Amino acid sequence: MLSYGGIMIDFRPVFFTIGILLTTLALGMCLPAVSDLIAGNSDWKVFASAAGLNGFIGVTMLFTMRTDETKITTRHAFLLTTLSWLVIAIFGALPFAFADLNLSFTDAVFESMSGITTTGSTVLTDLDRVAPGILLWRALLQWFGGIGIIVMAVAILPQLSVGGMQLFRMESSDQSEKVLPRVAQVAAAIGLLYVGLTAVCAALYWIAGMSGFDAVAHAMTTIATGGFSTRDGSLGAFNSASIEWVAVAFMILGSLPFVLYLQAVRGNAMPLIRDSQVRWFLIIAAVAVAMMIAWQILINGVRFGEAVRLATFNGVSIMTGTGYSSTDFSLWGAFPVVMFFFLMFVGGCAGSTTCGLKVFRLQVLYANTVSQISKLMQPHGVFIPHFNRRPIPEAASESVLSFFFLYIMAFGALAVGLGWTGLDIVTALSGAASAIANVGPGLGPVIGPAGTYADLPDTAKWLLSFGMLLGRLELLTVLVLFTPAFWRN
Amino acid sequence: MLSYGGIMIDFRPVFFTIGILLTTLALGMCLPAVSDLIAGNSDWKVFASAAGLNGFIGVTMLFTMRTDETKITTRHAFLLTTLSWLVIAIFGALPFAFADLNLSFTDAVFESMSGITTTGSTVLTDLDRVAPGILLWRALLQWFGGIGIIVMAVAILPQLSVGGMQLFRMESSDQSEKVLPRVAQVAAAIGLLYVGLTAVCAALYWIAGMSGFDAVAHAMTTIATGGFSTRDGSLGAFNSASIEWVAVAFMILGSLPFVLYLQAVRGNAMPLIRDSQVRWFLIIAAVAVAMMIAWQILINGVRFGEAVRLATFNGVSIMTGTGYSSTDFSLWGAFPVVMFFFLMFVGGCAGSTTCGLKVFRLQVLYANTVSQISKLMQPHGVFIPHFNRRPIPEAASESVLSFFFLYIMAFGALAVGLGWTGLDIVTALSGAASAIANVGPGLGPVIGPAGTYADLPDTAKWLLSFGMLLGRLELLTVLVLFTPAFWRN
Repeated sequence: MLSYGGIMIDFRPVFFTIGILLTTLALGMCLPAVSDLIAGNSDWKVFASAAGLNGFIGVTMLFTMRTDETKITTRHAFLLTTLSWLVIAIFGALPFAFADLNLSFTDAVFESMSGITTTGSTVLTDLDRVAPGILLWRALLQWFGGIGIIVMAVAILPQLSVGGMQLFRMESSDQSEKVLPRVAQVAAAIGLLYVGLTAVCAALYWIAGMSGFDAVAHAMTTIATGGFSTRDGSLGAFNSASIEWVAVAFMILGSLPFVLYLQAVRGNAMPLIRDSQVRWFLIIAAVAVAMMIAWQILINGVRFGEAVRLATFNGVSIMTGTGYSSTDFSLWGAFPVVMFFFLMFVGGCAGSTTCGLKVFRLQVLYANTVSQISKLMQPHGVFIPHFNRRPIPEAASESVLSFFFLYIMAFGALAVGLGWTGLDIVTALSGAASAIANVGPGLGPVIGPAGTYADLPDTAKWLLSFGMLLGRLELLTVLVLFTPAFWRN
Repeated sequence: MLSYGGIMIDFRPVFFTIGILLTTLALGMCLPAVSDLIAGNSDWKVFASAAGLNGFIGVTMLFTMRTDETKITTRHAFLLTTLSWLVIAIFGALPFAFADLNLSFTDAVFESMSGITTTGSTVLTDLDRVAPGILLWRALLQWFGGIGIIVMAVAILPQLSVGGMQLFRMESSDQSEKVLPRVAQVAAAIGLLYVGLTAVCAALYWIAGMSGFDAVAHAMTTIATGGFSTRDGSLGAFNSASIEWVAVAFMILGSLPFVLYLQAVRGNAMPLIRDSQVRWFLIIAAVAVAMMIAWQILINGVRFGEAVRLATFNGVSIMTGTGYSSTDFSLWGAFPVVMFFFLMFVGGCAGSTTCGLKVFRLQVLYANTVSQISKLMQPHGVFIPHFNRRPIPEAASESVLSFFFLYIMAFGALAVGLGWTGLDIVTALSGAASAIANVGPGLGPVIGPAGTYADLPDTAKWLLSFGMLLGRLELLTVLVLFTPAFWRN
C-alpha cells in the first residue's frame, strides 16, 4: 500500500499481476536453459540462475500482494501496463548481463528492451558465434512482446481511450460487467492463433531451407514483427528468395488486426476482406514498394526480378517495423533512403504486433483533414469524418489528432537528445524514428542495416530504450504516469 | 467570366485586384531601374522594360475587369490569395530572367518565389559582383512579401478560418458590414508602421557601419524575416557584432504580431507584454539559443562572448525563418545541426512576417494534448484548452490539429519528391523543411549556409518553389483550389 499526499492507493493488484509475469518469465527462461544444455554450452547456468531469481521474486510477489479487492481501476491499468514492460525489460536483461557476452548493464537492458518492445535494434556484434540459448532468448522476448501488445491492444487500450484506441472497443463494452470475461476469451483465442501462425511460419522457413533452430527463432521474431535474427547478416545471410518471401508473408500477417483473423477462422472472412484499415495498409505498402522497385530499375540498373525481391522484402520489413534486412539499403541512393525514413513512421494496423503511428490513425487524420478542407468552402456545412464506414466520434478524432502531435514531439525531443550525445543528424533522426516506431535498424553507416547500436554512447542507449518503451505503449500510457494528477486521488 | 460545369462564376473582381498588384509591381520596378541608372549600369533597361510590360498588363486588367459587383466571396478570396502570390512570383521573375545573370526561366522563378514568399533561398552565386538593381529588386520582393503576408493574416485568413486563424478575428467581425473598413484601416496603419520599422532598422544598420545601400537592402529583408543579403557571405560578410545585434532585434520585431505594435503605439503596451504567443516565442528562442551556446562552449571550446553572438544570431535567424547566417553552422556538430532542423519548423507569431508552423499553433496543440492527457485519468471530466487566457473554440482546435497533420504530410511529400530528384537525405529533409517554413538555407554541404540552390536539378527547384508557396499561404489556401468542390457551385 503506497501513500501519496496523505491518500492511500492500493497498488497490490498491480504488483500481484507483475508477480504472475515474472513467474512466467522465469518459466520462459527454462527454454534457453534446456537449449544450451543440449548444445553443451555452459550458459545454461546463466539462464537457470536468472530463472531462479525471477521465479523467487515472482512467487514472493504472488504471495505477499494477494488482495481481495480485485477491481482494476484506470489508474491500476496505466501503472500495470508501463510497469509490466519495464520490469520484463529489466529482468529479461539478466541473461544478457550474466552471459559471456561482455555486455554492460546498459547494453543488456537495451537489448532486452529492444526485444520485449519488438524493436529489433541490437548491440550484439558477433551473432554467428553466440550460443543458441541467448539467440533463443532474444527470439522469445520478441515473441512474448508481440502477443503481449496484441492482448493489450484488444483488452486494455480501448478501455483507456489511448490515442483513439476507443475506436476498437468491443461491442459489448457498454455493459462493463460482461467485458472482462469476453475480453479474456478473445485474448485466449488470439493467443492460440498466434501460436498456430508461429508454427506454420516455422514450418515454412524450415521447408525453405533453414535449420530447425533458425526456423523457430525467426518464426517468433517474424510474426512479432520484431526483427531479431540469429545471424549478423540478418535474413540476408540465408541468401534465399523463398525464405524472404515467407518472411514477407508473415510480416504482413503480423501487421493486420488479429481479431479479424478470429472472425475469419470462425468462417466469416468478410470483415477481414472489407476492413478499410487492411486495405490502406496494403495500398501504402504496395505504392511505397512499387516506387522503390522503379528506382532500383531506373537509377541503379537492377534487373526486374531482383528489384522486386529487394524492394518488397526490405520495404515491408521497415514499414511493418520488423527490421530484417537482406542488404544495406542505406546504399540504394537518395530516394529509397528518404522513403525508408518516412516508412518507419507508418507501422501496421491496430491490434497487430506492429508499432509506429498505425494505419488507422493516418486514416482518421486524413478523414479529419478532408472535412476541414470541405468546411473551408462551406463554413456552415456539416462534414463528419468516417472510419471503416462509420462516423468517427469527435472524442476519438481529438484523441488521434493530439496523439499525432505528441508522437512528432516525442520524436523531435528524442532526436534532439540523441544529437546532444554526439550522434550526427542522420543517425539521430533515423535512430529516434526507429526507436519510437519499434523498427530496429536506422539509416547511415552507424546504425544502418550494416551497423549495430553497440558503439553508441550509454546516454544514447538509455534515450533509445526509453523511446522504444514510449512508442510501444502508445506514448500516453507512459506519459500519464508523469502527470501530478495521476498520483493525486 | 469563366464557366465550369455550366455554372458561371464571376472572377472579374479577382483579376481586377491582380491588375492593381501588377501595376504596383511595375511601379516597384522603377526603383531598381533608377538605382541602376545612377550606378551607370545597363540593367536599368531590363527593369524599365519589365516595368513597362507589367504596367501594360496590369492597367489593361484594371480596365477590362472592372465590375459593379464588388462582393468578394470566400471563393474569390482563396483564388485571389493564391493567384496574387503566383502572378507576382512569375512577373517578378522577369528582371532575373532578362538581366545578365545567366539564369534559366526555372532559376528566375525560383529566385522570385523565394523573394516574394520571404524565404531567402538563392540560386545566385556571385552576389558581390551583381549590379545594385538586382540586389535591390530581391530586397524589394521580400519587403513586399512581408507586408503582404501581414495584411493577409490580419484581413483575409481569419475570415477564411485557415488553419486556426479564426482565433485572430477582430472583435467586430460579427457585424460583417463594419469589418472591411475597420480591416482596411488597420492594414493601412500596419503598413505605415512597417515603413517606420524598416527606416529605423536601416538607420541602425547604417550607424553600425553598413553603406546606405546595404543598410536599406538589409533593413527590408530583416523586417520581412526574408534573409536575402547583398553579399555571398550573408550578414557574416560584414563581420560586425553590432550589425548582427541590430539584425537579431529586428528579426524578433518582425516575428511578433504587428497588431500588438499598433496598440502599443496608441499607448497601450499591455496586450503586447501580456500576449502569451509573444512569451512562448521568446521562451522557445531563448531555450534553443541557450542550449546551442552551452554546446559551443562545452564541445567546441568557443569562448563565452563569441558563443553567445554566434548562437543567438544564427539561431534566431533560422527559427524566425529569416535565413541569414554569419558562419557555416552546418559545421557546429551533432546537436546544433539537429536543433537547427527542428527550429526551422517553429517560425514566429501569427500576424507577423514569419512563416513556419507558428507559435500559436504549437500552443493550441499543446493545450489540446494536455487536456487529452487529463481526460485519460478522468474520462468524464471536462477539460477546455485555453489560448491567451481564453477557451479555444472546438472548431479552431480541430482546424489547428488538422493543419499540423497536413503540414507534416506536405513536408514528407516534398522531401520524398526531392529524394526522387536525387538529393541526399539531409539535403532532401532540410530543403523541404526550409522551403515549407520559408527559412532559406538548408543543412549540409549543398544547400547549407555555405552553399546555394544553384546546382539542384530543375525538378527540385520547381518542387521547392511550390513548397515555398504552400508554406507561405498556410497550405490550405492553395490546396483548396485542387478540390473539385471549389470549382462547383
